Amino acid sequence: MLKIGILGGGQLGRMLLQAAANYPVETYVLENEDDCPAAHLCHHFTKGDIKDHDAVLAFGKGLDAITIEIENVNIEALEELESQGVKIFPKPSVLKTIKNKILQKEYYRDNQVPTAEFVVSDSKQYVSSMEHFLPFVQKKATGGYDGKGVQVIKDAKELDNAWDGPAVLEKKVNIEKEIAQLVAINEKGETALYPPVQMVFDPYLNLLDHQIAPADLNEKVLWKVEAISLAVVRNFRSPGIFAIEMFIDKQGDVLVNETAPRVHNSGHHTIEAHYSSQFDMLWRIMLGYPLGNTDAILPSIMVNIIGAEGCSGKVQYDGLAEVLSIENAFVHLYGKKETRPGRKMGHVTVLSKDKQELLHQSNKIKRTLFARSGTPSIQL
Amino acid sequence: MLKIGILGGGQLGRMLLQAAANYPVETYVLENEDDCPAAHLCHHFTKGDIKDHDAVLAFGKGLDAITIEIENVNIEALEELESQGVKIFPKPSVLKTIKNKILQKEYYRDNQVPTAEFVVSDSKQYVSSMEHFLPFVQKKATGGYDGKGVQVIKDAKELDNAWDGPAVLEKKVNIEKEIAQLVAINEKGETALYPPVQMVFDPYLNLLDHQIAPADLNEKVLWKVEAISLAVVRNFRSPGIFAIEMFIDKQGDVLVNETAPRVHNSGHHTIEAHYSSQFDMLWRIMLGYPLGNTDAILPSIMVNIIGAEGCSGKVQYDGLAEVLSIENAFVHLYGKKETRPGRKMGHVTVLSKDKQELLHQSNKIKRTLFARSGTPSIQL
Repeated sequence: MLKIGILGGGQLGRMLLQAAANYPVETYVLENEDDCPAAHLCHHFTKGDIKDHDAVLAFGKGLDAITIEIENVNIEALEELESQGVKIFPKPSVLKTIKNKILQKEYYRDNQVPTAEFVVSDSKQYVSSMEHFLPFVQKKATGGYDGKGVQVIKDAKELDNAWDGPAVLEKKVNIEKEIAQLVAINEKGETALYPPVQMVFDPYLNLLDHQIAPADLNEKVLWKVEAISLAVVRNFRSPGIFAIEMFIDKQGDVLVNETAPRVHNSGHHTIEAHYSSQFDMLWRIMLGYPLGNTDAILPSIMVNIIGAEGCSGKVQYDGLAEVLSIENAFVHLYGKKETRPGRKMGHVTVLSKDKQELLHQSNKIKRTLFARSGTPSIQL
Repeated sequence: MLKIGILGGGQLGRMLLQAAANYPVETYVLENEDDCPAAHLCHHFTKGDIKDHDAVLAFGKGLDAITIEIENVNIEALEELESQGVKIFPKPSVLKTIKNKILQKEYYRDNQVPTAEFVVSDSKQYVSSMEHFLPFVQKKATGGYDGKGVQVIKDAKELDNAWDGPAVLEKKVNIEKEIAQLVAINEKGETALYPPVQMVFDPYLNLLDHQIAPADLNEKVLWKVEAISLAVVRNFRSPGIFAIEMFIDKQGDVLVNETAPRVHNSGHHTIEAHYSSQFDMLWRIMLGYPLGNTDAILPSIMVNIIGAEGCSGKVQYDGLAEVLSIENAFVHLYGKKETRPGRKMGHVTVLSKDKQELLHQSNKIKRTLFARSGTPSIQL
């Protein structure tokens, strides 16, 4: 049995391990928190820091392969392990490129992948000189996650809010739709594309409101999306699962926003809605089995369950029984003991052939199910 | 978070724990083998004998609820735990009735549940006196499992093969179809019925060949199947999941063969083919959530992967890559390190609207996928 490790023990690791139990594989997890969502679902749990060189190196010794749950890991240790023959999914070279938003944008440019116009900034002072480039988005080179480290600078007044330090300044796109394309690529270079999903954001909270699969795209746009996604993935020359987030602008042009070189929030619906889920697919790739079938069984909608504003502490779920009564809904709670505002606590997928029904149920779920704590974290 | 234990750590426990990871629950497993299929998927694994009074009692202290993977557990310990307030799914009283085939048959008779005519035998000598009852099936009162402890006595010559000791002698039924009906019942007494499945046996090996869902039954037979199943379950006065195996004879009469008071091989297809799987359903019942939706997403066929004849030892899977290439197949391997002839090593479910396609793929899987060991266990 192959021995495969996961760096990170959050919900992505949890869902990977649920899928791993269908395969002959011995599983390992490295994570700092003993009671993280994935800790109890692996064969061997190691407490340790995935950003620490020695911890990652020690964890990887003797494993056949390693994958990641998050890009923010010690890449140098992974390079050493790779040189010792441990397979890394994705390759450390890909992590290096993607982890730094400047390198990521340069990768798109160098590989003729359409992406929003950008400049590289090294300081707040430089940003101030870019009034002619307004409106733009400032993305910190490193450390951003789940919408953190990204801000829109709309006009000259807002230049004052600019962050100091290395960043990308990206011309603001006139977005018609945001979509994500999941691509699987195995060690032979064979690829499989899932149908793209549309991500709909809450304009006030700047958080994913829901995600619908498949995205409603015309043939020409779909063609571009698939061709661009394959270009992004093939040029990495690395097996793995990739989620490519893209903007479609008012002209029908397709621009890559960013790429995650791993299982991703935009693929959660594949657990029930597709023959081979993104988690199943990654095990197939790592274990050397044939790629899975990316076809949908039914169209779907996915809603994240996010820690409510003003609540921190021991979690309780309001409305859970009501959502569990929805006949075509699948509830996934991640087993996190503590909620915090904005924390991803779970998700719900709904299946139906009828788009109105999908939207109706996702609205109901958003109105009904809340992750709260007994006591508000701030006085309201 | 509720603390819930499972007695037994085989494939049923494994699949229960895959489903548990969608719910807020802390999981415990008691099993004698450290590397059993479920050991690494629970929060707390205890090595111990599920048939041992003290081991079960110690395991259950402090838990909110317990369920079982197999009937052959220490029922007295479960009764003590029940009296101390631990909820047992199903109730120990049900286990007592079902574990003993004589009591089980008497239960059907006493509750006017149609079942094959039977007499209770206490010895080989008694069996010899039953020539006028031929042909019949002898079922040992206790200890039978997966077809063991059951034999057909066709004619007077075969009376010599009769086993000694307590047993049921059951008049042989002229079987048209064998089906299984899964029923969920919660603590409020609310019930949910899955569509019945048809079990097709290999006439030579006396083993399940495949199982197709839904079973092809006419309206009148379906009505009887559902009414009888509800009678079986309601009279137990216990929450849980029940699989009722039934014969349909040439006249369209429905006779209960036996009942499993737990998740069951006949419900494996529900993982992908139904909205709420049998495993998901049992967690809903134990955690006090609403019953799930038993509707099928698509019709399905299920094939067990059984340890090949003549092979014992470290398992290897022949034909796995080919079966993983079947576009509408879902492969579940149970992570057992050793194969033995007849051992359940995994199963494959195929989804399709087209019955011919289901049969075609299940034939292909049976011809292709084998659990073997490197060295044959017997000289051929």
